[in-house]
Amino acid sequence: MRLLASIEEPCDLRRLPKDELATVAVELRHELIDAAAEVGGHFAGSLGTVELTIALHYTFDTPQDRLIWDVGHQAYGHKALTGRREGLRQIKRSNGPSGFLRRCESPYDVFGAGHAGTSVSAALGVAEALRRQGRDGRVVAVIGDGAATAGMSFEAFNHAGFLGSDLKVVFNDNGMSIAPNVGALARAGNPRPYFETLGFRVIGPVDGHDLGELLPALEALRNAKGPVLVHVRTRKGKGFAPAEADPFGWHATVPFCVETGQRRGHGAPAPASWTTCFAEALIRVADRDPRVVALTAAMPDGTGLDRFARRHPDRWYDVGIAEQHAVTFAAGLAAEGMRPVCAIYSSFLQRGFDQVVHDVALQGLPVVFVLDRAGLVGADGPTHHGVFDIGYLRPIPNLILAAPRDENELQHLLATAVDSGRPFALRFPRGPALGVALDPDPKPLAIGRASVLRRGDDLALVGLGKTVATVLDAAERLAEIGVSATVIDARFVKPLDGHVLAAAARRCGRVVTVEDHAAIGGLGSAVLECLAVAAPGTLIRTLGIADAFVEHGDVAEQWSNAEIDAPSVVQAARELLGGMA
Amino acid sequence: MRLLASIEEPCDLRRLPKDELATVAVELRHELIDAAAEVGGHFAGSLGTVELTIALHYTFDTPQDRLIWDVGHQAYGHKALTGRREGLRQIKRSNGPSGFLRRCESPYDVFGAGHAGTSVSAALGVAEALRRQGRDGRVVAVIGDGAATAGMSFEAFNHAGFLGSDLKVVFNDNGMSIAPNVGALARAGNPRPYFETLGFRVIGPVDGHDLGELLPALEALRNAKGPVLVHVRTRKGKGFAPAEADPFGWHATVPFCVETGQRRGHGAPAPASWTTCFAEALIRVADRDPRVVALTAAMPDGTGLDRFARRHPDRWYDVGIAEQHAVTFAAGLAAEGMRPVCAIYSSFLQRGFDQVVHDVALQGLPVVFVLDRAGLVGADGPTHHGVFDIGYLRPIPNLILAAPRDENELQHLLATAVDSGRPFALRFPRGPALGVALDPDPKPLAIGRASVLRRGDDLALVGLGKTVATVLDAAERLAEIGVSATVIDARFVKPLDGHVLAAAARRCGRVVTVEDHAAIGGLGSAVLECLAVAAPGTLIRTLGIADAFVEHGDVAEQWSNAEIDAPSVVQAARELLGGMA
Repeated sequence: MRLLASIEEPCDLRRLPKDELATVAVELRHELIDAAAEVGGHFAGSLGTVELTIALHYTFDTPQDRLIWDVGHQAYGHKALTGRREGLRQIKRSNGPSGFLRRCESPYDVFGAGHAGTSVSAALGVAEALRRQGRDGRVVAVIGDGAATAGMSFEAFNHAGFLGSDLKVVFNDNGMSIAPNVGALARAGNPRPYFETLGFRVIGPVDGHDLGELLPALEALRNAKGPVLVHVRTRKGKGFAPAEADPFGWHATVPFCVETGQRRGHGAPAPASWTTCFAEALIRVADRDPRVVALTAAMPDGTGLDRFARRHPDRWYDVGIAEQHAVTFAAGLAAEGMRPVCAIYSSFLQRGFDQVVHDVALQGLPVVFVLDRAGLVGADGPTHHGVFDIGYLRPIPNLILAAPRDENELQHLLATAVDSGRPFALRFPRGPALGVALDPDPKPLAIGRASVLRRGDDLALVGLGKTVATVLDAAERLAEIGVSATVIDARFVKPLDGHVLAAAARRCGRVVTVEDHAAIGGLGSAVLECLAVAAPGTLIRTLGIADAFVEHGDVAEQWSNAEIDAPSVVQAARELLGGMA
Repeated sequence: MRLLASIEEPCDLRRLPKDELATVAVELRHELIDAAAEVGGHFAGSLGTVELTIALHYTFDTPQDRLIWDVGHQAYGHKALTGRREGLRQIKRSNGPSGFLRRCESPYDVFGAGHAGTSVSAALGVAEALRRQGRDGRVVAVIGDGAATAGMSFEAFNHAGFLGSDLKVVFNDNGMSIAPNVGALARAGNPRPYFETLGFRVIGPVDGHDLGELLPALEALRNAKGPVLVHVRTRKGKGFAPAEADPFGWHATVPFCVETGQRRGHGAPAPASWTTCFAEALIRVADRDPRVVALTAAMPDGTGLDRFARRHPDRWYDVGIAEQHAVTFAAGLAAEGMRPVCAIYSSFLQRGFDQVVHDVALQGLPVVFVLDRAGLVGADGPTHHGVFDIGYLRPIPNLILAAPRDENELQHLLATAVDSGRPFALRFPRGPALGVALDPDPKPLAIGRASVLRRGDDLALVGLGKTVATVLDAAERLAEIGVSATVIDARFVKPLDGHVLAAAARRCGRVVTVEDHAAIGGLGSAVLECLAVAAPGTLIRTLGIADAFVEHGDVAEQWSNAEIDAPSVVQAARELLGGMA
């Protein structure tokens, strides 16, 4: 690590003679492998961009020249070269750097990243701002072929080529999204006609692991005017044999043994994950209903659809990072009699919001949205928390919105959703489910019916999904201090069970709601709206995530900080009860 | 109208010999011109697709073959040939057909339209559904070159080309969006390499007004397998000289004189529109702040930016129908010191929702979103109502959300927004503003400060934007029956003025909120959340649009039906007051 240790910032790198850069690459790759072996994290993407990252910081005068990454999975090398090498050993932990790019983390992180396809839009804005103000600095966006399947990247290329701005793009073509990339553009192999039609001059393709090809190409990029793109071919996982052999499996990793590639630690969590439980439930539902087809937007593993695909290889689609299309494509399927199940992370469905309103709900089409990663997600941080979905979905007419408290309720709610013949969204969190036993068959539940899990007279605690366990726990704790609580699993945020809620409110006079979602516009608001009419005068406290973005870190810590854990519920209940407890 | 009168459905058209179709085109064009002259509506687009529409219904066995239009501005001819010719004289009125496509309106409207770029996604879904079920029917999407600037259309082409489905696309290339089309693809003139790279076989270009070219091209399209696209060149406004000369100005029209092209009736509404007032305010704000640049997504006239552009021709961008890019491009501009003002209709910003969260708010960048057409929009109907924006924006941290009650407050709030240095959204409705006098200069207001417009003790009425006039009116009416109402202009939905609201709630004990927005998740919810903590026990009634999509029609009627007009406020107040009034 002789050379790497001497690089505190890219200017140190730029002082090296060119012929030492290959050694830097060897050292940086070792460093990335060592750090990932120790703490895990996103992995194969950054291995594939080692030479590219070095060549970019060597060729461009960063941070005066603005380097804008897309997504951020591939930017660990960038972090290492920009003063955050030590940080890689703490990455994604609450005391370490983010797994993505963040403006507040480094002046070298010119624009934040996390969701795919944003870099060209952002870089074009930066380039235009510099031009307007007569300020110096070249602007370079690095976008992968996976991110380029996102419609917003097309919008950005189309606009940039039209404007003719001095915008430099590195097209990092590794044939992969997280999974193997899809789409006609990817399959065409040669994206040159696409980019040229969109007004870009195209350099390359060049071998992204050969500095002898890469450096001259980037020099040409640096010196070019107008919209220019260099097509760089890289290999995801490059330099670590297991990851080269299975770049999909090594996209992200837990700690592992460098010599053998053997993963350390727990493997699968003891209770199966919500994702796995969903996939198994979907298999069961699809087994008996031939109308069911499944859709993912480039997340076959993250959504569990890889598992579904093994059972029903011809009944699923990976549409690429294309949530807008996914939603309207599903609407088209539904319009002609299918029952599509669209599995999209909560924070990614934000991309398809208009399509949910305009193409699905307005037409009342039976599309099921399965929102994995709803609520606080832990290590991935604020770009990936799914804490706005109730807020953006609940106002939409015709849409049903529910959340299961355990994996058994999940399978029943999924059956409910498919059977309902209506637009239906189902949210559940990241991580292990509860490990409860499953009924033999998924059976439709009554839509809009809450479940009363415990009866008490002092106050009512209302949970949804994961917070049902929280309120049950809180009720136990309250019982210990002599407070008797009704516990309600709302189950449906929409339609809300006004009957059960009003009855409990009238009996107890006090209600506490708890949710793994923004306090603004969530379950709590729904309960407030309902009880304002149905039980006016009820004292209500709504616990949810405060009005701020939640940093990356440990989920349990995030829950505690957000005051949506059982002790916080107890505290809120005591405050509401005043002298009574 | 000999032939046209005989065509009740496309099967009647298909019984005609080919050489009569040119006559049908003449008659249909006359019919469209006559109807528009009588009642107005979208116009130039449909004139440009007269021959195409006839040729499509002649060549394809509709509705067995599925014809899916994009947007719908160009589909009046389609309506005329599918049993709705008389309806064109009532179009967009509450007793007439929608201005767009609607599944519930006709079996020939295979998939609804309104927002741009959805047709290829929907058609691909339909095609896959038919294939999976072994059902008959060809599937044809008709997409304009304007709609093709929307990223979701790229996503759909990329996926369709990859799947290799039997999908037929008509690319209606008239060089126009509503305004002249922008983007490198449009400027390239020849989109063939773009579509070929995306896996489509390309037929054409053909002259879309020459049935001799068009019919064989569509026959080839009909008989082709796999993803095929025919490139059709048309002229927006074709056959009506004033519209051919100014297709932008004649995109939509009020009634006019066929002989002279002279528009009838009111011209501009007596008080200037909110749009115009915004444009004038933006000019004043930009005059004194060189950081301000303006952005529109293909709506320079609809947003008033054409007016701004005349004053500051080099300080605005039309990015095309590309709201996702618009938002992140603005974020890039803001990251380097500019103060972008993104003028996007409320319902269209739904397309950029994720980017508002991820690229603007998370990074705290000073982008101003100006949401024109917020609230109920009248004739354009449910695809265009802006009734979800508070719902989807209010949960987003770091974002300020406000609405002016008149055009003077609008200019001050715009200055506030630009000066704030924070993400800021401003909503106002379609139609005429109030006609109040303007202060000489736009001046920043205190963020989060409501305005008490009237003091009373029996109850508090809270309005926002356009409903401030409603609650003032209601307060007058209540005064006549001896009820004294406090009237509050909330002005900011976020941050909400908890101090003023709580003081009023504590004094009056009763609060009625009224908003031109969904009752779920809007101002009312914000007030409920606030008062649950700040004035528990307050009796609150929240008036907003009920949980259903509102049909097209007259705005005043829509307000009355939605029970957000003054009589409804009075009624709600009386109910809340019980025996007191």
